[in-house]
Amino acid sequence: MSFTAPTQEQLFVLKHIAQIDQLAGHNAFSDASEDMVQAIVEGIGDFAAGEFAPLNRVGDMVGAQMKDGRVVMPQGYRDAYQHYVQNGWGTINAPAEFGGQGLPFTLAMAALDSLGAANMAFTLCPILSVGSIEAILHHGSDAQKEKYLPKLSSGEWTGTMNLTEPQAGSDVGALKSTATPRGDGTYAIAGQKIYISFGDHDMADNIVHLVLARTPDAPEGTRGISLFLVPKYRVNDDGSLGEENGVKTISIEHKMGLNASPTCVLQFGEDGESIGELIGPEFGGMRAMFTMMNNARINVGLQGVQIAEAATQAAISYAQDRVQSARAGAADKSSVTIIQHPDVRRMLMRMKAGTQALRALLYYSASKVDLASLGDEAAKEAVDILTPLAKTYGTDLGSEIASLCVQVHGGMGYIEETGVAQYYRDIRIAAIYEGTNGIQAADLVGRKMGMRGGDALKEHISHIINDAKKDGHDALSRLADACMRVCTSMVENNNIDDRLAGSYAFTTMLSVATAGWLMAQQLEAAKLVQSQEGDSPFLKSKIASAQYYLNVMVGEAMGLEHSALSGAQPLYALSAEEFAA
Amino acid sequence: MSFTAPTQEQLFVLKHIAQIDQLAGHNAFSDASEDMVQAIVEGIGDFAAGEFAPLNRVGDMVGAQMKDGRVVMPQGYRDAYQHYVQNGWGTINAPAEFGGQGLPFTLAMAALDSLGAANMAFTLCPILSVGSIEAILHHGSDAQKEKYLPKLSSGEWTGTMNLTEPQAGSDVGALKSTATPRGDGTYAIAGQKIYISFGDHDMADNIVHLVLARTPDAPEGTRGISLFLVPKYRVNDDGSLGEENGVKTISIEHKMGLNASPTCVLQFGEDGESIGELIGPEFGGMRAMFTMMNNARINVGLQGVQIAEAATQAAISYAQDRVQSARAGAADKSSVTIIQHPDVRRMLMRMKAGTQALRALLYYSASKVDLASLGDEAAKEAVDILTPLAKTYGTDLGSEIASLCVQVHGGMGYIEETGVAQYYRDIRIAAIYEGTNGIQAADLVGRKMGMRGGDALKEHISHIINDAKKDGHDALSRLADACMRVCTSMVENNNIDDRLAGSYAFTTMLSVATAGWLMAQQLEAAKLVQSQEGDSPFLKSKIASAQYYLNVMVGEAMGLEHSALSGAQPLYALSAEEFAA
Repeated sequence: MSFTAPTQEQLFVLKHIAQIDQLAGHNAFSDASEDMVQAIVEGIGDFAAGEFAPLNRVGDMVGAQMKDGRVVMPQGYRDAYQHYVQNGWGTINAPAEFGGQGLPFTLAMAALDSLGAANMAFTLCPILSVGSIEAILHHGSDAQKEKYLPKLSSGEWTGTMNLTEPQAGSDVGALKSTATPRGDGTYAIAGQKIYISFGDHDMADNIVHLVLARTPDAPEGTRGISLFLVPKYRVNDDGSLGEENGVKTISIEHKMGLNASPTCVLQFGEDGESIGELIGPEFGGMRAMFTMMNNARINVGLQGVQIAEAATQAAISYAQDRVQSARAGAADKSSVTIIQHPDVRRMLMRMKAGTQALRALLYYSASKVDLASLGDEAAKEAVDILTPLAKTYGTDLGSEIASLCVQVHGGMGYIEETGVAQYYRDIRIAAIYEGTNGIQAADLVGRKMGMRGGDALKEHISHIINDAKKDGHDALSRLADACMRVCTSMVENNNIDDRLAGSYAFTTMLSVATAGWLMAQQLEAAKLVQSQEGDSPFLKSKIASAQYYLNVMVGEAMGLEHSALSGAQPLYALSAEEFAA
Repeated sequence: MSFTAPTQEQLFVLKHIAQIDQLAGHNAFSDASEDMVQAIVEGIGDFAAGEFAPLNRVGDMVGAQMKDGRVVMPQGYRDAYQHYVQNGWGTINAPAEFGGQGLPFTLAMAALDSLGAANMAFTLCPILSVGSIEAILHHGSDAQKEKYLPKLSSGEWTGTMNLTEPQAGSDVGALKSTATPRGDGTYAIAGQKIYISFGDHDMADNIVHLVLARTPDAPEGTRGISLFLVPKYRVNDDGSLGEENGVKTISIEHKMGLNASPTCVLQFGEDGESIGELIGPEFGGMRAMFTMMNNARINVGLQGVQIAEAATQAAISYAQDRVQSARAGAADKSSVTIIQHPDVRRMLMRMKAGTQALRALLYYSASKVDLASLGDEAAKEAVDILTPLAKTYGTDLGSEIASLCVQVHGGMGYIEETGVAQYYRDIRIAAIYEGTNGIQAADLVGRKMGMRGGDALKEHISHIINDAKKDGHDALSRLADACMRVCTSMVENNNIDDRLAGSYAFTTMLSVATAGWLMAQQLEAAKLVQSQEGDSPFLKSKIASAQYYLNVMVGEAMGLEHSALSGAQPLYALSAEEFAA
């Protein structure tokens, strides 16, 4: 399968949804000129297609492997990663003072969009480094920033997040890893961490582990957690690498997919001491973790876009080639390419429109992250609201689109050689990690619904309602009205169990409404450009996709209102034991 | 993971939905006494749990393999299959005159339900034999029946369906395999068939291939296709096995799942002559194929129930054990089992209610097959309507439930060792084979909607509307009304493209309405039994599940009305080429 980065679409969304030219109007992002944006988007697109895409299948078949206690990446990965570093693709939004390009996060997202569509597993590595950079940047000391950020920003070193332990998954507060003061300001870290993506690999010179652990006599639960920086190789004061730091890779998991992303069990303090530095204050671990995870959540939502893009391209290409049966009811009984059959078109339009809707939702969220970083309070609130939507809907619809890709391929889709089954397997983790989608939904009806007593959410919905009514998007208007009814009812009711019972349905409804709102904006923008510059295949396709999302797909979410308001009672009619009867 | 067959649930559905005691009132099924039904359901349940379930994981990990041109099944499979044959489990609904027990198809379905929940891949083998038996029974000569049916009925020999060729998948009419008369009434079969499930294996003494092929000068397309019986080993007149029949296994596919089901490429007439017998008249191949496939479609729908059952059991068990976090908002801050958290309960109730709804839909469909076999014309019509619903909704909801099982397991669900990822991978083929779900949907709005000018479908919907209104099931009533609106509009419009554009949405709506109707019947039945015999954990669980389906899940399908009526225009706004823009 050949992959082509969707650069025209990315540039359109960057311009009309993320409004990157407005971002570039701020001093902090003044380098993001139209030319620069175009050069980066096109450059990374070529790189992704040329270097990351060809490694996707070997990554699935061979995968990362353990050899002599170390993780060995499949052939070609180290070289491709080194080219990525040499080309400076990792530094797009890294801070300029630490060697980065200081460009918007939104632009870095467009880069990850192409890289991950070419190779989702591989691209998880730089995504994790971004989380580490954020945590150190916001919570580290100046010395720590100087010591670690330049190498992390360039990609010479990579980063990991070490949160989970066997008994502490979604319940981070249950973790038991320990950090014992060594008397010189550093700590000896000990304990086992699981599910550590790229916890070991052979593509970079060093790995910077950010590890949640407990200091002696720390309070129980989340209040007693601190964040530590624990490198794979110790770093001398001059920045050169010292000896190994006692971080042992116990094993890697055998997963359903994402095989080129080694999921490690790491043991700290096992092969000698694992010396760590405290990042931020003692017991400030949760706050630092959320800094690390927040953008990661959006980036995981983006993984849905990545797979949706790859899957949609593959399905369209297959449907354009595969000849099977005449059109139903047609006078001409010759067989046609399957893209001519209505239900195949339904699947392809759904994939195409869904991918575009997700991309808009993700880039829009990223643009709010950039504005928030400039101190824009409204943007901060928007990020809070959008993050659970982007993560949940991105990964859910991304999974559905991967499934549709298998379906369009028929029996071929189920055969591994075709390559599309990999999309279906790879993307399935995304609804789980970085906070399960259920936890995202709980976050939406919990903390986010609590913002300004519910008014923050209501104002977001009001914007959608007003725009939809103004532009005559009836289905969107009805859905947004339904979102408002659910939101109002949940805020008034204030019973947390009832809210949680309807949380997933509400999250999906609001995601579809928000994505629909952005599709409506794209529709208007495309029509405007069309009137100014004339028609083009891209604009025609954009208009058809936006209309399909608004006129066909948006309405489906209406069915969720009833579920969103059904309350907790039906869920607790049975006791835990009675469930098995 | 331990699997327990849901015998109490199966017996309840057999009694109250399939009304097996009424079937037993017919002479043909008089052996299906209550005691016999219970003995079979419990016996097969124990056998499935004891012998098929323990082989499910090795089947996935090792899979069927090619060795020296033959397919070798994983260790344990041949013995378990032989026990299955020796216990007579394959003969339940096989005709008594050919060594079967002559019991209802519905009861055989209950047996396949347990076997496939224990091991979906393994159970596909007997499902295929059923198709072969049906084709020979209805279209073969007396001599063919006597020669092949006893061994197929007992399971000593197994059957396959050979339809697909590389250029002829959904478009069966494009097949090119040839059948050349040998002058003695037999034919020399030549050609390549792909995707032949259990096309070769080492569990039984012989394999009876039913092969679609073209006689010389046959008309093009489906009109020129005939069905041939081609055994792996030739069968002498005394029933003993002769020499090999030139059927070469070229390769087996490397699939996303269902690894214990060898998917073969077979070449006929390659290793010497492949001698075949015509089944039914020349050019009668399509009719015979539909006989073979119709029950197979229902049985593939049942595969959704199989995986849903296994996945639901696994998820409930995990959620009852896994401790993680305190209840949100609870005064008690101790961690609880995750089944206590509302959104986990939502997933589990959805899995539980969905599995029950599907089982009812499938058993109900099977009961109509049995009535139809007795000449009941209304039942024949019901089978026609129910088959696409059972196949499509069974496999779609089965896939969703497998996905929810992964989600409930969190990160563990993505690790292959846990075992639940296999459900997600195994079930994904079911929406594709035996006629893709899109083709089922086309069948519903095409041939089935054409029955009595649409009145057959409208009467089915009317039953649901009337019962729902009578019993006050508001959501079901609204959904059934919506189904009637869609159906009426499609019948009146009569534009095949518009119908097809909305076919999938309509199929899902009508499936949910039909399954909801059967859940409402179970609710009433459970309440009646409760009032007569007192409460029980099973009845309480049944009532809670039925209410959840009716009050929470049914309403979601309302969102599909708009899609079902959106017509073909949005799908043809772009040309085939423009899709890629």
